[in-house]
This record gives sequence, structure tokens and C-alpha cells, in this order.
Amino acid sequence: MPVNYATPAPEALFPVAGVRLGTAEAGIRKKDRRDLTLIEFAPGSRAAGVFTQNRCCAAPVTLCREHLAAGSDIRALVINTGIANAATGEQGMRAARETCDAVAALLGCSPREVLPFSTGVILEHLPVDRLIAGLPAAQADLRVDHWHAAAHAIMTTDTVAKAASRRIELGGKTVTITGISKGAGMIRPNMATMLGFVATDAGIPAALLAQLAKEAADASFNCITVDGDTSTNDSFVVIATGAAGIELDAVSPHWPALRAALIGVAQELAQAIVRDGEGATKFITVKVGAGATAAECRKVAYAIGHSPLVKTAFFASDPNLGRILAAIGYAGIEDLDAAGVRVWLGSNDKNAAGEVLVSEKGGRAASYREEEGARIMKNAEITVRVDLGRGQAAATVWTCDFSYDYVKINADYRS
Amino acid sequence: MPVNYATPAPEALFPVAGVRLGTAEAGIRKKDRRDLTLIEFAPGSRAAGVFTQNRCCAAPVTLCREHLAAGSDIRALVINTGIANAATGEQGMRAARETCDAVAALLGCSPREVLPFSTGVILEHLPVDRLIAGLPAAQADLRVDHWHAAAHAIMTTDTVAKAASRRIELGGKTVTITGISKGAGMIRPNMATMLGFVATDAGIPAALLAQLAKEAADASFNCITVDGDTSTNDSFVVIATGAAGIELDAVSPHWPALRAALIGVAQELAQAIVRDGEGATKFITVKVGAGATAAECRKVAYAIGHSPLVKTAFFASDPNLGRILAAIGYAGIEDLDAAGVRVWLGSNDKNAAGEVLVSEKGGRAASYREEEGARIMKNAEITVRVDLGRGQAAATVWTCDFSYDYVKINADYRS
Repeated sequence: MPVNYATPAPEALFPVAGVRLGTAEAGIRKKDRRDLTLIEFAPGSRAAGVFTQNRCCAAPVTLCREHLAAGSDIRALVINTGIANAATGEQGMRAARETCDAVAALLGCSPREVLPFSTGVILEHLPVDRLIAGLPAAQADLRVDHWHAAAHAIMTTDTVAKAASRRIELGGKTVTITGISKGAGMIRPNMATMLGFVATDAGIPAALLAQLAKEAADASFNCITVDGDTSTNDSFVVIATGAAGIELDAVSPHWPALRAALIGVAQELAQAIVRDGEGATKFITVKVGAGATAAECRKVAYAIGHSPLVKTAFFASDPNLGRILAAIGYAGIEDLDAAGVRVWLGSNDKNAAGEVLVSEKGGRAASYREEEGARIMKNAEITVRVDLGRGQAAATVWTCDFSYDYVKINADYRS
Repeated sequence: MPVNYATPAPEALFPVAGVRLGTAEAGIRKKDRRDLTLIEFAPGSRAAGVFTQNRCCAAPVTLCREHLAAGSDIRALVINTGIANAATGEQGMRAARETCDAVAALLGCSPREVLPFSTGVILEHLPVDRLIAGLPAAQADLRVDHWHAAAHAIMTTDTVAKAASRRIELGGKTVTITGISKGAGMIRPNMATMLGFVATDAGIPAALLAQLAKEAADASFNCITVDGDTSTNDSFVVIATGAAGIELDAVSPHWPALRAALIGVAQELAQAIVRDGEGATKFITVKVGAGATAAECRKVAYAIGHSPLVKTAFFASDPNLGRILAAIGYAGIEDLDAAGVRVWLGSNDKNAAGEVLVSEKGGRAASYREEEGARIMKNAEITVRVDLGRGQAAATVWTCDFSYDYVKINADYRS
């Protein structure tokens, strides 16, 4: 059960002019499930993406980088679940290329205009013949209102489909931004996450779109962690079809509104992954401020967000807050003065009252009472705020707690 | 239940000439348990230690560093469980000093000759009055053959007491090395571990003893991880009483034998902590070789050893080995060529046959059959061997799997 998240209804996912989506059962790994998704874009659509920094990245990630570097339009995404096509060597690269060739032949475009994505088990070969055999059914299913179905078709250990959509008015035109994402485990994106796709019908020049994709990833998918494992397949792609009839550039008066809306959609999608984190029962926001650099704030936020001891204490609603202090201490800031660190605990739930100062001057805050900590820890949404007392920089990380079910899911997955 | 480990019998823990140990019930946090340990050394005993690099280190760690820096003999260790006296600010430092003052008054030595240690809950104050009130009973209990009792008295979430002992003949004299350790969670020592004490009755000059303590820690406690959380209280201390009547120095012909035996005791104690890792059902050795530097080999070994996905796969006996490739890929070697990496799986169990090559050339090894992986994964002792294909350096890390019980233990601890 995800923490305070439900998939939006189909009608709340607004079609994006120039985008159609179709899904099919290709039998990649399991029968009777839609495991193949095709997303088609109108001619003239541009795409930009950021991908995993994992050195054992998947074949489709390598091919996406190659195709995006070629600089042509992007006419389609093809996504399979079940097999990640990662750690599959040259055979994996051939499978990814054959997939793009087959999509290009169906849609009448160049293979270079197709971006492939895979998610699932690593170190196993993609049954590319079954994938290709499933493509005509996915093509026949292409509709502008199939975002909801596509969000379901890209799931693996996800318990809910993840999607977000916004409509904004820009200079008298309606611009739509709709996106989908998937992921629940092996989540500690480094540049992007395990499949996030956001499309808009605004027109955005290629260089600006590339910058926007990076900014949006840094403000969303690059701020989440479930288990600290960086996937081999993380991919985040932003597509701009231009079909809404409005062209934007960085100096356009409408750019800030489009940028904010798109980053908002990316954050919603990224947070949905944490809310649906494997076994998650709580959604934790870790805000670290007053650091010397943003990098050191991120180190501290991730040390807290990755600590199995902190995460099991959240699961138990146990205000065993010394574990947070320990994580701050080992985060890797060599000259950190523990006496300058302050820690607050709070909750964004409606019925929780404000923040509580837990620790200061290297110890428990004189005003802190354990009942207050216990009261906040019972909430499903908890904020840990840390003040490092050494500068102006800040960083935020979103994570979840660590429960029996994380172990159950990952001990059972695949078996 | 620890993995292939049982506490040695009391008679297998040889007394070390010049060392007496006593325990008592001080009621630090819970009643009816021996939670206070006093270890007394003969005049002329020297000690050297290495301590946690956690910036939020405990008050007793700070005081140990101060006392060891003073360079005098060490006459006693005083160890309490229940409360870690970490993140306790100035009040915590006062409590640690008062503890040393009280021990010194009882034994007739200087407070500077006493080293204090605490383990337990962080961010709570040590009930120093109860601790001091318990000291006379611990003193009355001092015996040369109380190593077994002391190993029990320093336990927290440990399921077994940890001790190791060796006797060697050096130049016609019998030299004894006996040690105890504790720890099961918050285990990712950085310089040392959550309480390891090794004593020998050989005489060793101070500078050489300091070097030996560091070498022994680096070859033992600094190679283990349970959950990646570096404790605030990690301490490893080596004491040389000199009471065996043999003085060693670095050029002594007996030095290599003493050094090897002491490192052997430290490794046994460190591995015992992993075997008793919270919830552990398997003992995993990760050997990374053919790296450019030892540091990068350690990075890769720890990435594998910390990955919750790898550890849950071991728990499930599921040869989902792509997760190991993913961990190698995100370990932080930026110019790693995945095509040059090879991975083997093996077991040191008697009934397992040799190693199996799992992955090479960026993918699954052609010769690998999943049945073989599954067969090895069923064993309680498993070795993952990685060849990075880029140099001569190597590193080993010992870790355990990740089970439901890790979550249960840490969600319940304290509550």
C-alpha cells in the first residue's frame, strides 16, 4: 500500500497533443500481463533525457544516449518490463537495436528516432522475438487517452501506477504536461530514475529542453531514495511535441510557468515512487540546511535516508533519534562540529502540531520530551530537519521507512 | 542464531598474565543483567586503540583518545552496556570523567590510566550514579578466568558472546592472546568496531603497539559490515601487560608470530560480529581483486556488502546475481569498463564444489547454469569473488545477509 498516494483517474491524465500510447501483452517474462508499451510522437517532437550513472548500465540506456546524441526528432519510445536487458553484453545491444529497427519499420521512421527502455531482472536476455511480435498489437492500441494504461503497463514491483498531469494557460494557449513513472526498489537514482517520462505539447528548443530535463531530474528523481541501490536502467525523458501551437525559449515570459509546472509534474512522479517504495509505510522528507555546500547537505540527507537503523525506527514509530545523530556523524563531513548541529522532527499531516527541536549542542535538547517525538513518529508523513550550523546551503531528500515487507518483496522477487 | 559460530567454553579462553576481569549488575538500563565490566591490568601495561571516525562520537571515545594521548600506563577498562553516552553533550563528558575518577579511586591509580567505554542507546544520559555504585561489586568479582563472563556482560543485541584466545610459544616462553568483542547492528566500523578488546602478556613498546592496533583493526574490524551504519562508539583496544616475561620489538625474530596471532584473534572476533549480525542467516565473504587501487576494491566490496537487494537475495538463496553487477556498477569507479569485470560465486562449506563463473564480458558467462548458482546460494557460507580486470590491488569484506529479523530486531530494539 503506498503512503498517501493513489493513481489519478484516467480522465485526470490530460492527453498531450501529438502523443499517442498503446500497450500489449508480449509475454516477455510472465503471461497475461501488458508488458509492452509504445508511445508515438508527432513529427517535429524533441526529446531530452538523463540516464543512470551506473557503470554497468543497460543496453537500452546506451542506445538512448546514442540516439539522443544524433540530434534528430524523436518519434517513439518503446518500453518493456520483465527483463532489464542489463549486464547482457553484445547480445543485449543487438536486442535493443533490433527493437528500434522493428518500431521504426512499423511507424515509418528512422531507428535513430526511437528510444528503447527495459526494466526487470538483470543478467537475463531479452526475448526480442516475442517483443517484436507484440509490437503490432501495441501499435493498434495507440490512443491519446491511454496514459493511464501505459502507467500500468510499465510497472514491476510497483503496487500502484504512477502518473501526474497539469494544464496551464500560456499566452492564450492551453499547454498540457503529462507524465508517468515506475519504480519501487533499487531506487537511488543518480541522474534520473528507473523510468520517468514527461511529455508536453509546448514547443521547446533542443538545448533548452536538455537543460530542463536535467533541472527537473535534479529537483525530483535525483532527490529520492528507497534502498540506496542505483539501478542499471534509470532513465528520465522529457518530450516536447510543439503541437499546442506555442513555442517557448528561455527569455519567453511564459518560460518560468512552463518550467515550474514541468518540474512539479516530475516531483509528483518522483515522490510517488517513494510513497510506493517497497514495503513503505511512511513518507519521510529529510531537509538539511545551513551547510557549507549543497553537496555536503546531500551527503547528510542521504546518510539519514539510507540508514537501515533510522528507517526501521521510523517503521516502528520509535523516536530512537540518536540513530539520526549517528548517521549525521558518519555522513563524511570531516570537520563537522557536532556541537553546532540541530535536529527537528515534524510532520506535514494536518493533525500534527508543528516541529519539535530534538537535539542541539551535541546532545538532547533540554526542551525535548519523548512523548512529543513519539506523537510525531506515529504519522505517515514525517519531516526530519537538520541544521548543520556552518553555512547557507541546503538540500532535500525524500525517502520511506524500512519494513518487513521490503525484505519479503526482495527475497521473493523473481523466485 | 549466529552463522557457524559458538562462544568458546570458559576454559578455552586462556587467562592473560596481568589481566583480571569482573562484572556486576549496575541497573544502567535494565534490571537483573550484568551490564558493568571492569578489566584491571598489572602496573606497566601498555594500551593502544583505534576509535570511530563518526563525527558525533560518544563521550567515552573522546576521553579514551585523551587518556591514550597522555602516554601513561593503562591500569583499567570500564565498560557499561545499556546507554551509549553518545550525543549527550557536556553532561556526557562529565559522566565519563566521573566514571574514570571512581575507578581510579578504587584501584589506587590516576583517572588518566582508566579507559571508559559505553554501548547502547544514543541520545540518552548515562545514570552515572548507578554505574559508580556498581563498581565495588565489579571489583570484588575480579578474576583472571573471567573472560567468558566479561564477553557476556558487554553484549547488547548480540545473540552470543564473542571471544577468541590463542597461546603461542615464543623463545621458550608461553605468550597468551585473549580478546572479546560485541556488536551485531550499527556495524560498519570505520577504524575500529563497537567494542573489541584484545590483551596479551607479551611486552610491546608503545609505538609498536599503536602500529599493531591499527594493522589488526584494518585487517579485521575494518573489513566487516552488517548494515553500513558506523557507530558512534566503535572502539578497539589492544593491551600488552608484559607479564609473560618476554619483551618484543619490530626486529625481534618472534614479532611476526605474535603479530600474526594477534591479527588472527582480531579477525576471529570481527567475523564473529558478522556471524551474529542482526538477523543474519548467512556469512558472506566478498573478495575484490585485480583493481587499480585497494581503495577502489574496498568501494566495490562495500557496495556489494551494503546493497539491501544483494543481501535479501542471499537471504532468499535466490541467484539473482544481476544485483551484484548493479552494485559493482554504482560503486563509484567512474572509468570502470563493465566488459572487463568477472564475477564468481563459491562456498567454503565442505559439501560445495568449487567456484562458478557467473559473469564476464559485460554479461552472463556462457558456461553459467542457474542450477549451479542456486546450489551455492543454499549454503550458509558464500564467497563472491570479483575481478575488476584493471590492476593488481585487492580487498576483502565480510558481511551477512538481510532478513526479516533485521527489521524485527531494529524495529523492536528499545521499545
